[in-house]
Amino acid sequence: MANIHQVAKHAGVSVATVSRVLNGQNSVTAKTRIKVEDAIKQLNYEPSLLGRNLRNSESRLLLVLIPNISNPFYSEIINGIENTAIDLNYNILLCETDTNPDRENIYFDLVRKKMADGIISMDPAVNVETLTKLGKTHAIIQCSEYAVDSGIPYVTIDNLEAAYRAVKHLIRIGHTRIALINSDQKYLYARQRQLGYQKALEEHGLHMDEELIFHTQGLGFEYGQQAMKKVLSQKQRPTAIFAVSDLLAIGALKEIHSHSLKVPEDIAVVGFDKIAFSNMTHPTLTTVAQPMYQMGTIAAKMLVDKIQGKEVESLILDHELVIRESTLG
Amino acid sequence: MANIHQVAKHAGVSVATVSRVLNGQNSVTAKTRIKVEDAIKQLNYEPSLLGRNLRNSESRLLLVLIPNISNPFYSEIINGIENTAIDLNYNILLCETDTNPDRENIYFDLVRKKMADGIISMDPAVNVETLTKLGKTHAIIQCSEYAVDSGIPYVTIDNLEAAYRAVKHLIRIGHTRIALINSDQKYLYARQRQLGYQKALEEHGLHMDEELIFHTQGLGFEYGQQAMKKVLSQKQRPTAIFAVSDLLAIGALKEIHSHSLKVPEDIAVVGFDKIAFSNMTHPTLTTVAQPMYQMGTIAAKMLVDKIQGKEVESLILDHELVIRESTLG
Repeated sequence: MANIHQVAKHAGVSVATVSRVLNGQNSVTAKTRIKVEDAIKQLNYEPSLLGRNLRNSESRLLLVLIPNISNPFYSEIINGIENTAIDLNYNILLCETDTNPDRENIYFDLVRKKMADGIISMDPAVNVETLTKLGKTHAIIQCSEYAVDSGIPYVTIDNLEAAYRAVKHLIRIGHTRIALINSDQKYLYARQRQLGYQKALEEHGLHMDEELIFHTQGLGFEYGQQAMKKVLSQKQRPTAIFAVSDLLAIGALKEIHSHSLKVPEDIAVVGFDKIAFSNMTHPTLTTVAQPMYQMGTIAAKMLVDKIQGKEVESLILDHELVIRESTLG
Repeated sequence: MANIHQVAKHAGVSVATVSRVLNGQNSVTAKTRIKVEDAIKQLNYEPSLLGRNLRNSESRLLLVLIPNISNPFYSEIINGIENTAIDLNYNILLCETDTNPDRENIYFDLVRKKMADGIISMDPAVNVETLTKLGKTHAIIQCSEYAVDSGIPYVTIDNLEAAYRAVKHLIRIGHTRIALINSDQKYLYARQRQLGYQKALEEHGLHMDEELIFHTQGLGFEYGQQAMKKVLSQKQRPTAIFAVSDLLAIGALKEIHSHSLKVPEDIAVVGFDKIAFSNMTHPTLTTVAQPMYQMGTIAAKMLVDKIQGKEVESLILDHELVIRESTLG
């Protein structure tokens, strides 16, 4: 491909003149402009966006950091981010971090080096120190999971209250032995949801049995299956499960079926998120609906506001308990 | 944030000198270098990657164009692409095109303008003319769906043969009235899979009934549900379904259940892709396994080869029929 030097040579002008034509400056005569434009056409020259962006230092690109593209929870948030970004004349680049700080840092670099205008971070395992530092000089919004002390605005739900309502529902329909399938306590949401579980039990005078709390290494359904195996090996089997993600709950459903037990007759199950699949299982899954699409639209709006130098406030959105077949006994 | 002019002013040198220090050139004295480095530190200046890339014209970024991030078929391919790219010292940026040619064109621009080194296109609705043209001057690989005449290398499976095997399996276990839930015939894979369906029927002397072929507007399970509704409203109900994606098949399963019919006793179901969810349904889904992860790794390797100017050949990978509960009668 031709470069600007070849265009200048071909047109018989200086590189600076080609640059002036590309920038639409008026200091070039019509005759010269035509010569340059002809050369650009003949050589099929495409001015580099890199060069252009150096001048206006705006990429119109937003980075979205997601831990794992396979979790439908994130894809529904991304839909919201994407539609809003496009409305606001931005495009988004999705970066899967695999909760790996090194990989995350490579994507942070895209913003440091001005290839993107801002970041929406959904990574619960984010390197908080780096994020906090970067947030002082660059536009960043946290979505769903957040680092409290980072000073970076976030949009999320009240995880404690949501978990409390889910477990309260199980207690109300008669369950007293309720297992919790939780992810790693290093995540804020995991700690908050466990507190909600605890609050519901305590409020109803139920003892919190540590043996009924199971921690997983991930949110995928294979982890739900593994955890449920452990649940079912208990001497005194629980009659209900609260899992902190729908994928974990769907894995649990699968494992329960493979033991020829019935949901909800033998064991009731509640999930979290309300991903589309939660309505495709048999039985359908009772779950806490997170407003994922809305969370995405708000995060995108907040980020663009932040880029434009506006004041941005953190937001806590409403959740909803959706009661379906897996708890209708 | 400080720019290069402020650094130059602060260090008392010219912009060209700062640039020489940033580029590691030897033509700068140690004393000047230290002055510049001090200024960079004090002003917290971060040299723009844009400027750097203009010089070495390599971004080490690969674009991956996906029609829809919500389909697990794509996320498994992406895992393969990503792991290979990272091994080869590239990072990937995911671009969701929503099968919208305008949006696709914005992402094509990132390569035209040298912000990315190459493209893996998985978009079945790609603007073929633009893609073909771009493929002449830039590194592009097609993955899964491809435009035959584009001259752009691809990695895919034999869709006709795979569909043929799936339908043959249904015939072998006794079905003679088999419905096809297909997507839009504008897609190559949809035409190929329909030909495979037809071939299996013809080979066994079965009549291809146009009334048993249902076309959908998308691959999501809501489309599978809708299509299955139409299937079940037929006077003479088919005893088996072949759906061209697992999501369509899972939607069909759901609809069959909601009519209190049983799978496979009343209706057998075969899907396509072998996404992880196909093993989480009740009953589990018989499906054609595509080597999604491998397809991703190969596409990434092919793209990097292409970027490095090597000769790249198209590849057709093996598929496998995975027989599970939904066809075990």
